[in-house]
Amino acid sequence: MTDQIADPDAPRPVSPVQVRATDAPDQPVPSPELDMLYRNFEKELLVPLWTEIGDLMPPHPRSKASPHLWRWQNLLELAGQAGDLVPVGRGGERRAIALANPSLEGKPYATPTLWAAIQYLMPGEDAPEHRHTQNAFRFVVEGEGVWTVVGEDPVPMTRGDFLPQAGWNWHAHHNAATSPMAWIDGLDIPFQYTTEAQFFEFGRDQISDAEHATPERSRAERLWGHPGLRPVSMLDESSGSPLLRYRWADTDAALADQLDLEAEGFPGVLEPGHAAVRFTNPTNARDVLPTIRTEMHRIASGTETAPVREVGSSVYQVFDGTGRVTVGEHSWSVQRGDMFVVPSWQPLSIRSEASASDSDSGALDLFRFSDTPIFDKLDLYRMETTR
Amino acid sequence: MTDQIADPDAPRPVSPVQVRATDAPDQPVPSPELDMLYRNFEKELLVPLWTEIGDLMPPHPRSKASPHLWRWQNLLELAGQAGDLVPVGRGGERRAIALANPSLEGKPYATPTLWAAIQYLMPGEDAPEHRHTQNAFRFVVEGEGVWTVVGEDPVPMTRGDFLPQAGWNWHAHHNAATSPMAWIDGLDIPFQYTTEAQFFEFGRDQISDAEHATPERSRAERLWGHPGLRPVSMLDESSGSPLLRYRWADTDAALADQLDLEAEGFPGVLEPGHAAVRFTNPTNARDVLPTIRTEMHRIASGTETAPVREVGSSVYQVFDGTGRVTVGEHSWSVQRGDMFVVPSWQPLSIRSEASASDSDSGALDLFRFSDTPIFDKLDLYRMETTR
Amino acid sequence: MTDQIADPDAPRPVSPVQVRATDAPDQPVPSPELDMLYRNFEKELLVPLWTEIGDLMPPHPRSKASPHLWRWQNLLELAGQAGDLVPVGRGGERRAIALANPSLEGKPYATPTLWAAIQYLMPGEDAPEHRHTQNAFRFVVEGEGVWTVVGEDPVPMTRGDFLPQAGWNWHAHHNAATSPMAWIDGLDIPFQYTTEAQFFEFGRDQISDAEHATPERSRAERLWGHPGLRPVSMLDESSGSPLLRYRWADTDAALADQLDLEAEGFPGVLEPGHAAVRFTNPTNARDVLPTIRTEMHRIASGTETAPVREVGSSVYQVFDGTGRVTVGEHSWSVQRGDMFVVPSWQPLSIRSEASASDSDSGALDLFRFSDTPIFDKLDLYRMETTR
Amino acid sequence: MTDQIADPDAPRPVSPVQVRATDAPDQPVPSPELDMLYRNFEKELLVPLWTEIGDLMPPHPRSKASPHLWRWQNLLELAGQAGDLVPVGRGGERRAIALANPSLEGKPYATPTLWAAIQYLMPGEDAPEHRHTQNAFRFVVEGEGVWTVVGEDPVPMTRGDFLPQAGWNWHAHHNAATSPMAWIDGLDIPFQYTTEAQFFEFGRDQISDAEHATPERSRAERLWGHPGLRPVSMLDESSGSPLLRYRWADTDAALADQLDLEAEGFPGVLEPGHAAVRFTNPTNARDVLPTIRTEMHRIASGTETAPVREVGSSVYQVFDGTGRVTVGEHSWSVQRGDMFVVPSWQPLSIRSEASASDSDSGALDLFRFSDTPIFDKLDLYRMETTR
Repeated sequence: MTDQIADPDAPRPVSPVQVRATDAPDQPVPSPELDMLYRNFEKELLVPLWTEIGDLMPPHPRSKASPHLWRWQNLLELAGQAGDLVPVGRGGERRAIALANPSLEGKPYATPTLWAAIQYLMPGEDAPEHRHTQNAFRFVVEGEGVWTVVGEDPVPMTRGDFLPQAGWNWHAHHNAATSPMAWIDGLDIPFQYTTEAQFFEFGRDQISDAEHATPERSRAERLWGHPGLRPVSMLDESSGSPLLRYRWADTDAALADQLDLEAEGFPGVLEPGHAAVRFTNPTNARDVLPTIRTEMHRIASGTETAPVREVGSSVYQVFDGTGRVTVGEHSWSVQRGDMFVVPSWQPLSIRSEASASDSDSGALDLFRFSDTPIFDKLDLYRMETTR
Repeated sequence: MTDQIADPDAPRPVSPVQVRATDAPDQPVPSPELDMLYRNFEKELLVPLWTEIGDLMPPHPRSKASPHLWRWQNLLELAGQAGDLVPVGRGGERRAIALANPSLEGKPYATPTLWAAIQYLMPGEDAPEHRHTQNAFRFVVEGEGVWTVVGEDPVPMTRGDFLPQAGWNWHAHHNAATSPMAWIDGLDIPFQYTTEAQFFEFGRDQISDAEHATPERSRAERLWGHPGLRPVSMLDESSGSPLLRYRWADTDAALADQLDLEAEGFPGVLEPGHAAVRFTNPTNARDVLPTIRTEMHRIASGTETAPVREVGSSVYQVFDGTGRVTVGEHSWSVQRGDMFVVPSWQPLSIRSEASASDSDSGALDLFRFSDTPIFDKLDLYRMETTR
Repeated sequence: MTDQIADPDAPRPVSPVQVRATDAPDQPVPSPELDMLYRNFEKELLVPLWTEIGDLMPPHPRSKASPHLWRWQNLLELAGQAGDLVPVGRGGERRAIALANPSLEGKPYATPTLWAAIQYLMPGEDAPEHRHTQNAFRFVVEGEGVWTVVGEDPVPMTRGDFLPQAGWNWHAHHNAATSPMAWIDGLDIPFQYTTEAQFFEFGRDQISDAEHATPERSRAERLWGHPGLRPVSMLDESSGSPLLRYRWADTDAALADQLDLEAEGFPGVLEPGHAAVRFTNPTNARDVLPTIRTEMHRIASGTETAPVREVGSSVYQVFDGTGRVTVGEHSWSVQRGDMFVVPSWQPLSIRSEASASDSDSGALDLFRFSDTPIFDKLDLYRMETTR
Repeated sequence: MTDQIADPDAPRPVSPVQVRATDAPDQPVPSPELDMLYRNFEKELLVPLWTEIGDLMPPHPRSKASPHLWRWQNLLELAGQAGDLVPVGRGGERRAIALANPSLEGKPYATPTLWAAIQYLMPGEDAPEHRHTQNAFRFVVEGEGVWTVVGEDPVPMTRGDFLPQAGWNWHAHHNAATSPMAWIDGLDIPFQYTTEAQFFEFGRDQISDAEHATPERSRAERLWGHPGLRPVSMLDESSGSPLLRYRWADTDAALADQLDLEAEGFPGVLEPGHAAVRFTNPTNARDVLPTIRTEMHRIASGTETAPVREVGSSVYQVFDGTGRVTVGEHSWSVQRGDMFVVPSWQPLSIRSEASASDSDSGALDLFRFSDTPIFDKLDLYRMETTR
């Protein structure tokens, strides 16, 4: 017996015995009076709980979204066709093509909270400057030659780089190369759309000559790219990361180090054969964006991860290697660039399966982004290893 | 010129000059090839940004919800009819009837994130025990005689009381009086539904005899109801408030004190003639629930509040007095028990207008709840005084 | 085997086997060369570690302070004599007489970090306004009639009241009664003196007529004295509590409630028969002062508390009842007003022993203040129950 | 007129007009009765405030410590002699020789809170394993060949490296080179001694063969040395930094980048010609140790820093270059390795003066450590630019 308030941070095992179905609640006996009552509810813009509770308050999340896989080759080919047919300019703003989850009514939502798109820029093109409260990032699965200009600071993008773009920062893109370039954009557009928090502003129509520069390192990186070191002139916490590019060389080394440590018998990996790093904001060591968590995972050849289900949804992109991914009842073979979504509370497991054409290591590298910070900060996060 | 990251906490005036419409973005020239491209997008479950950006990324929040007013007398009458026709029991769980915003497709959502309902319990009835991750509260505009049993602790409810109910606490209700009782429930059901975070469990079908007790003070109040004093045995921060009842006598005194201080020339009121207190969690002094902010406002007779618009939505209930409320283009005369919604970024102003039948003071008292903690914690909150 | 960094929050059992004495470290063999080296060290203002380590880095804190008891009757009598002989005015500032721990070289330090004094004000006297960074409080073991004017807000003081006084607030006292009044002051003077952080300013020589008012409730209490309610106009966190008086009626009720709950079989007390509340800052629910923790303890008649030792030092004053206190090797019978110090890492146990003249309950009430927030915030706190 | 509580974070200009001396408070008229009172105070272990307030509560910090400079050549020579005469072993623990501030009564305290020492290890020597709550670090002004073994993880030390050592981690040193090596140790020994918080334990007498390895990178660095990347397996905040070595190459690059950005017209430097980075804990982005702040400063040739005074004390070591340092009334020419202390509230200014023998840049590089986190966390920090 206790009169204590439940600790929402405590582990909350969901016992299959305790959770009974609420799908078919007991309902009152039909009668003309009840019919009249329901009509009067409707007239007064009222809805009873007892007819809706099974859907509204299920025993655990039943995502409206479906697990789904998009093939990178298809994305790239269609983006290339758009490059020929659709100009980039003020109004349309970006040549971005979004994943539309098959169960979300044709909306451009990868999951109920997350937007994921391929963006494509032709040689010499500029995407015009704007800013918005939606938090964003870019991740580069292949190519180079584009600079994202953030607050007048040109930031290079090459394979493996991760570029966070916290809300309300001015940004534009320019392709300084002789070939087109594609990358993925992730944003919290659906979340801000449903919760109605979004602001948007156009910036300058042209960025300056100085911003067309193509420096190898952004100013942000020169200030914030040194491990454990903060400029004493910049001690305020910022909501999103001021480090605008996380280079592949660093990410790759961090993942390799974890697997090496495991081989030597030391801690570091997330589970056997599974290295993982989280991109963090150097002003507070927390998630790089206030609403979006981003991570890079490396799964050693032959390893299968333990099935895990979590509150909230994720989008993955295969960065390198080949393997097999299982999400709930779905399962796919995946390779470089393929993207898939994991809806809330659906178990996910990933197996690394080296193919003949793989690089030496045969490891499977995956970039992941998710809406987890939303649930973390609102005390709603849960996870469960189901193996 | 700067390469600094924008500070999302800085005031962000939204200049009407800078924010141009994004409703009609420039679109590519129609052609058979473009048609084919769009058909291929659809086949691959893709949606371009450039056709959707005007809706998806507006210059400021344009709420899908409408301002709307529900009259307490209508709510109460229909709830009373439900008392006669609809039993309370396992499955339906609660005799609760929700406000359904006229612009939200008939869903039982007061706003895109908030649920607001009238709950009604007949003499001698018990509403069965359950728990859920949805954060909840009750507010009592009139009546007495019901106890909410939280974690086996019976908590009395009388006019003016506010009872927070943080997620995942077991709770039941029993009406120990000889007449029916009604009150309002507020929850974050729509928010947890769209973000897919919700868990639900049935509890015991019957609460014990001991829990049918009708103490004047709950155990929670005996532990946590002393101003500025914490039990040394309970120093952990809890996500929701462990104080399960905020008594009207305290709230009333706090509001009266602010207006008295104003009359004596000292600070305290929110603006001239406008006193306001926020219900807070005594373990961290922050909002009483992780996703819901709750406040009580008192507007002196003849006072009109400055129009304010905010990111996020609110629901108000008039607790006492009469007045006129203006939300965007809508305006209503209001009296005791009336409930209205304020959608995101719609300006709100309230005028206190004493009527002949008013109590001496003629002040207008309003209970308010909102989804503000969501935006606060995710660095998305903005507000603007528009006068 | 691990390469992990120690978690300083983890329980750190101090094994008597592992902790060997460092009192007599091995020392180099004496020689003329060594003598010369030591002389050269001295000349260069250098001191070797190896000769000092036993004192400097002991296996656990060995406080330089001693446990000691001061009798209230003696304090009061000497303070009364000072009332006759020593005026209160600018320069001397306060008629305060400090406990000087017998092992701290005659300095006015109750412990190495804490100042504790009896302050005494004659009828009609004013203590002049000043402010300082030293954090302070007053606690009233008997009497009434003095108001402390903080930032021009007169705050009444009566038996059982606790008045925090965060650093850098202007304050003065005036005795509006016809008899003298005494109370205790606690400050972090020794801590700020040794760490060299202190600032001090004189204020006005006379407070105004308006500030000589004797309201029953201070303005601070009218704004902040309502449980769980914050003025919406005052949402910033403040370093020290804005609530300037914690009334005895509230503290007494909170302690009584805990013992009642225990009697009914519910949680609340700190240990069997031992109720305790901590005074907290309503803007953050943490300690009422940044460097000083303050608590009220009630020990039921016949109860003996478990011996506890903690990093940091405490001062106690008996508020009511009689009992026996054991600190390390020292033990005293105590009664109303008696004050004693508990040095760092010395075990403390308290037994409540009702006497014939006791009030009905026979409980022993003690006010406690300590330097614990310093160690808490710097990750240096440890405690151990030694029974 | 206000009844608000002072905001201790607000800028607090210390007006010379407002701060009047409290050195010579008014004192009561001498009399036999007063003499008797004072004798009785003494007998009862009491001290009046009015005779002590001038010293105890000064208008601003008047440090008991003096500004002082120690020459590296002298330190190194005496440490070398100790290498010949004083063995390293269990009991004495370390061949460390501490700076003893000339005004602190011969105690081995550089300042009232900080310990600074030169440590010296002969070829092949091991300093035995122990742990203590005192927070520590090493900084290497010259040499190489020593590994500090922290929690069984060997960490290399070479010129310019900074090695934090949070309290209660096991650690030992071994010199794997053929020559002696010296470096400086900084600890909070005086702070923990006066506040009485310290614990100490001996570890193993011998570290294992595996720990005598001399890896180029520690395991800590492999886990935590990648900018902005955290192992997903290690998400808990730790009180001190888990990154055990901050390499000179990174620190040097960060400082050079700031000066380059300044030359290009962009923000980054602390003031004109003055670059500075702070060492931070990658688990929370705050100070690398709970009680000690550490920074590296680079002052461009010919630049003089603005005089600044701060609450709390600092110790500096010149890492490279030459210049002139002014602390209060003291001024010294400094060069590589020289160490000086800046007492609380004493103004400091540094001028970089290239000498003929300087490296190309002519910049003056200084390592700094201070007790600032203590004051930061306790809301006692103030600083003032006095130019």
